[in-house]
Amino acid sequence: MPHAVTWRCVKQCRQSGARLGELTTPHGVFPTPIFMPVGTQATVKAMSPDELKSIGADIILSNTYHLFLRPGAEVVAGAGGLHDFMAWDRGILTDSGGFQVFSLQSIRKVTDEGVVFQSHIDGSRHKLTPESATQIQHQLGADIIMAFDECSPANADERTVQDAMHRTHAWAERCLQAHRGHEEKQSLFGIVQGGITPSLRVQSAKAIGGMDFPGIAIGGLSVGEAKPLMYEMLEVVQPHLPKERPHYLMGVGSPDCLIEGVLRGMDMFDCVLPTRTARTGMVFTPQGRLNLRNAPNAQSYIPIDDTCDCVACRQFSRAYIRHLFKAGEILGARLATIHNLRYLMRLMQGIRQAIAEDRLLDYVNEFYAASDWVRY
Amino acid sequence: MPHAVTWRCVKQCRQSGARLGELTTPHGVFPTPIFMPVGTQATVKAMSPDELKSIGADIILSNTYHLFLRPGAEVVAGAGGLHDFMAWDRGILTDSGGFQVFSLQSIRKVTDEGVVFQSHIDGSRHKLTPESATQIQHQLGADIIMAFDECSPANADERTVQDAMHRTHAWAERCLQAHRGHEEKQSLFGIVQGGITPSLRVQSAKAIGGMDFPGIAIGGLSVGEAKPLMYEMLEVVQPHLPKERPHYLMGVGSPDCLIEGVLRGMDMFDCVLPTRTARTGMVFTPQGRLNLRNAPNAQSYIPIDDTCDCVACRQFSRAYIRHLFKAGEILGARLATIHNLRYLMRLMQGIRQAIAEDRLLDYVNEFYAASDWVRY
Repeated sequence: MPHAVTWRCVKQCRQSGARLGELTTPHGVFPTPIFMPVGTQATVKAMSPDELKSIGADIILSNTYHLFLRPGAEVVAGAGGLHDFMAWDRGILTDSGGFQVFSLQSIRKVTDEGVVFQSHIDGSRHKLTPESATQIQHQLGADIIMAFDECSPANADERTVQDAMHRTHAWAERCLQAHRGHEEKQSLFGIVQGGITPSLRVQSAKAIGGMDFPGIAIGGLSVGEAKPLMYEMLEVVQPHLPKERPHYLMGVGSPDCLIEGVLRGMDMFDCVLPTRTARTGMVFTPQGRLNLRNAPNAQSYIPIDDTCDCVACRQFSRAYIRHLFKAGEILGARLATIHNLRYLMRLMQGIRQAIAEDRLLDYVNEFYAASDWVRY
Repeated sequence: MPHAVTWRCVKQCRQSGARLGELTTPHGVFPTPIFMPVGTQATVKAMSPDELKSIGADIILSNTYHLFLRPGAEVVAGAGGLHDFMAWDRGILTDSGGFQVFSLQSIRKVTDEGVVFQSHIDGSRHKLTPESATQIQHQLGADIIMAFDECSPANADERTVQDAMHRTHAWAERCLQAHRGHEEKQSLFGIVQGGITPSLRVQSAKAIGGMDFPGIAIGGLSVGEAKPLMYEMLEVVQPHLPKERPHYLMGVGSPDCLIEGVLRGMDMFDCVLPTRTARTGMVFTPQGRLNLRNAPNAQSYIPIDDTCDCVACRQFSRAYIRHLFKAGEILGARLATIHNLRYLMRLMQGIRQAIAEDRLLDYVNEFYAASDWVRY
């Protein structure tokens, strides 16, 4: 059965080995490496679909856990699916809810069958299983859907991580089973777990890579462990990932981590970081990070980043956007969000171009030299 | 000295007597009757300047009191004035701060010289006088600036209202004096007070109308009195207002009140109502008001108003926007705000066209017949 979503490697950087690719989905063909802005509740916070297009977003992520609880999968399905519901006609990937029920919920019961958890909204009890998480994602209708996995916390002991990994593998098989017959409409990606234990990561990469997933995600990283440890895990895993399929590093969106991820063979990324921190007034610049709320910006009539082509940088000054934040105005969150996402889109564009020109290592060196990001 | 802002009557409706006019400002020529969206803190809440243009806003209102306290007039002046600071190249009117210091502040001291008040932000003490309020408005640089007035509450006794009115008249003369030499850059409008006492309203209209203001505002209405009482005051005042100048009814933005104001000779309006209520999920439709948060909208896949051309109505369903409100998402406030303002822009457009066609009374009857607005 042909997969709804396919990926092909366009070329590898002769300097770094990083991959330039092309992701074909029912809602467009997108270049990789790619960053996917997060629209947890069927909206990228503070952004409109038109604005997302204007900054060059091709595919966004939304969340099974959140949409299942509110407004409910049937409400989204009634609209004709997530694309119609949120008026977004480019790509969508839905996370399975695994990460959320294991990390956001305190009261839950995990069995081999699935997870019983309490809603963070009203405390009501719900159950998610590999089968129901897959079925809900069928109702939501994203281009890429994710297997229901068990994500262990950064500080979990090895036995716990190992159990979670084995359960993730068993659940992955059940998700594939539940997805039978839907392969031409949506594609199901599998998730590698294994915490920060190299041998478990290798085992998991082999197990998930051996199943019929058209894309492989690395889950359970960027959950609190130190960056060097995350990079090490990527290096351990990479040789065991199927080369002909896209590699998706989940939950990573810091500029330095995106770069290091690409250098370690990753093709897709998502994270709330650029949008969440934007709403606090923290913005990315070629020099690093800038807190717009700080006093020195009060009469700074220059843009956030004079090399940036986003509406925030073309129309407004730091002084004005700082005023919006100090005054609690929505436009402040909007402008900072637009800028941070545009910054990441341009960063990924730069990475792709550098791969095409076989000079990604030079590009990375220039990135660190210009900014105050520390390289681990 | 020629005035920066001029107004001329284009025609009077033969059916209703209402005026179609043209307001010429340093930032454009705008048709009246006109509604001015409120951007209290140098931003119309939840909107961008581009969006304001897309819904047809020509002139917006901002606030001396708020901008004086935060970010400070010198910060705005340093950007080159309010237009540059907020990236808005169409008309701006700044209120003088009179209404705010008298209605928002609890601790203050009023003398003939001016008002001492405490900041609502940090409790710091400040003074505004007719001279300083005018001078601050010179720093802000709006096209139309307002005289510093004393606005008495709806429940004030007649003696208090009378004293406030006399002080407003004396302050109006001092504002004109402070404005000397600035007439070609900005225009200063006077404000009629007098509460809900007809004889005081007449006296105030004659006094303010007798001064060299290129525009006359009606202040102190829509402050808690019943609608019929407001309409009565407008009827009492109207014959005494200079016919050749624009009449600006301050703080009115409910669709029914806009219509009744135009019927009583008013040309300009402003109010936070459409934007403030939008952020609670209340939107205007041709049928009246709709609370998007209500349960019946949960699976309502139709637009807020299928006759509306705004982006909220063209791209999104009630079900989706309700979800955004229930989930606390910024895009909900954005879409409801865009719609409510576009609704009022189209209402005013309809009013102007009806005046041009000498059928405003028919238009008004159609408005009330289609909607659940009660006519007083």
